[in-house]
Amino acid sequence: MGADKINTNKINIVDTTLRDGSHAVSHSFTVEQAVAIAGGLDKAGIDIIEISHGDGITGSSINYGFSKVDELELIEAAGKVIKNAKLAVLLLPGIGTIEDLKKARERGANAVRVATHVTEADIAVQHIAWAKQAGMFAVGFLMMTHMASPEKIVEQAKFFADAGADYINLADSSGAMVPDDVRARVSALKAAINVPVGFHSHNNLSLAVANSLAAVEEGALYIDVTCRGLGAGAGNTQGEVFCAVLERLGYNTGVKSFDLMDLAEDVVEPLMLRPQVVRTDSLMLGYAGVYSSFLLHTRRAAEKFGIPPRDILVELGKRRMVGGQEDMIVDVAYQLSQKK
Amino acid sequence: MGADKINTNKINIVDTTLRDGSHAVSHSFTVEQAVAIAGGLDKAGIDIIEISHGDGITGSSINYGFSKVDELELIEAAGKVIKNAKLAVLLLPGIGTIEDLKKARERGANAVRVATHVTEADIAVQHIAWAKQAGMFAVGFLMMTHMASPEKIVEQAKFFADAGADYINLADSSGAMVPDDVRARVSALKAAINVPVGFHSHNNLSLAVANSLAAVEEGALYIDVTCRGLGAGAGNTQGEVFCAVLERLGYNTGVKSFDLMDLAEDVVEPLMLRPQVVRTDSLMLGYAGVYSSFLLHTRRAAEKFGIPPRDILVELGKRRMVGGQEDMIVDVAYQLSQKK
Repeated sequence: MGADKINTNKINIVDTTLRDGSHAVSHSFTVEQAVAIAGGLDKAGIDIIEISHGDGITGSSINYGFSKVDELELIEAAGKVIKNAKLAVLLLPGIGTIEDLKKARERGANAVRVATHVTEADIAVQHIAWAKQAGMFAVGFLMMTHMASPEKIVEQAKFFADAGADYINLADSSGAMVPDDVRARVSALKAAINVPVGFHSHNNLSLAVANSLAAVEEGALYIDVTCRGLGAGAGNTQGEVFCAVLERLGYNTGVKSFDLMDLAEDVVEPLMLRPQVVRTDSLMLGYAGVYSSFLLHTRRAAEKFGIPPRDILVELGKRRMVGGQEDMIVDVAYQLSQKK
Repeated sequence: MGADKINTNKINIVDTTLRDGSHAVSHSFTVEQAVAIAGGLDKAGIDIIEISHGDGITGSSINYGFSKVDELELIEAAGKVIKNAKLAVLLLPGIGTIEDLKKARERGANAVRVATHVTEADIAVQHIAWAKQAGMFAVGFLMMTHMASPEKIVEQAKFFADAGADYINLADSSGAMVPDDVRARVSALKAAINVPVGFHSHNNLSLAVANSLAAVEEGALYIDVTCRGLGAGAGNTQGEVFCAVLERLGYNTGVKSFDLMDLAEDVVEPLMLRPQVVRTDSLMLGYAGVYSSFLLHTRRAAEKFGIPPRDILVELGKRRMVGGQEDMIVDVAYQLSQKK
């Protein structure tokens, strides 16, 4: 590591075990678990702790899966044990509303990340503006950024910046990027906009830690992680590993990485339903660059038309299908079966 | 990925599931398993298939653990189902001998990788020279290369090159490197020596795939992998993931990555004893940069002197302890306990 690459600013670690990680435990976090994890993260020096249903506040539903415990209860309980970290919720406009955000704020959330598809940042402007006038820390969060060029990302991020966002978070939602993809996007944003940049990675190609490191080298100041990499499919950037890597390279995170290791091993690992490894399903999502929610639909269509699921996923990636276009999966499977 | 970074040569994939992977299954491979794995690897287009006890030929012993099935039987059975790949054995001078290599060759091995500590390449010269005169493909293999400067590695690699090695393999045995460490070593070797370079990675810092990709970008032509990352601790570079990444980036490996995914999921995963995840133990080995064999000794010393095992590992890394110096672990633990 050349000293020229060291970003001398403090790197803020954002833990989303209790939000993105909740997908991997079917949104079954209990109050006791939330308190143990949030309290441990805070003591370890994590800067922002995100807690919500995996699909953001009020995601608990028949569509996205019901939470075992009302997220407002979890937010309130976590808020009581946090001394230094910000307590954030995720809000996906269309699922959650400003009214829902008000409730989360009343129960203790002092930060919000408002997430949209990479081409739809404009629908988050009002949410970010509301959060700022309410005194909250507000983040604009672009999902599926592997599908957009650096130029498009800059264009979209400007909506967030103009609305007053405290930083802009780029998510590799499908775990489809390699480090150079991350570098191109983070550096373009850094050059164009005077608002800090964050990065959120998934491990489908076993590159989550490397991609997060590339983001930091390009000047990102906020990095999303989860304990043990807890998350859907291949999972997220493994927090205790990433912090240990940054520490060894001389970056300043303020995180006590040994404490984070203990939290991951003693508190989070015992509640995991399965190990966070890269199996074929999640590898293919990263390889094809498609939404994880496509997987179940793809398997059904594959069976119906006698086509390998992999072939359908690759075709969906080529056609740049996005969430909401699940109906097209059957059409793609039918077309592939005709070509055969 | 800039087109300038694409290495247009064929990248040779070297699978060591049946050698380095054997550590993770206590050297328990059966003839049936070896045949299924070697046959599947060959069909998937793997270039070199390595098979031996995890510590190289004749590693089966009370020191390193006994193999369930004589490795010569496994070599012979694997050799019968391989049509295109080279069949390699590992030889660690001091454990295996030229006489042992002769036996492996008689049973079907046509390639050998001779491995030494990064500063001791000279002890492998006679083995490589013998293999070459016997018509074998011969590889010089430097272990623990994170402990040596690029200049030292070049100096040592020259012993292998002068002995006639077909390529020189650099191993990050502790999984302690970040991509820039790999780049510095591979590029120095490429610049200094006109023999192809290979790379062998471990996943202790969750960087095995990224480090292998960095090696390829710097011109390495041989990359070690295992199915599902099977290997001690955090495991090795996960072959089916790495090949999928290279394929997506446009590299030429000749590997059918979907076939490799199926082999990993259907044949290798069912025989694994534990998932290949990064737990604290293996993370600490990578963080401290020490031999995995230190772990058990460290735990015992930690208990005896009431010191956290992590503190001992970090100190061992600082003192640059190498294999064979296990006796010093107790001294280090004692000294740390006195400081307390």
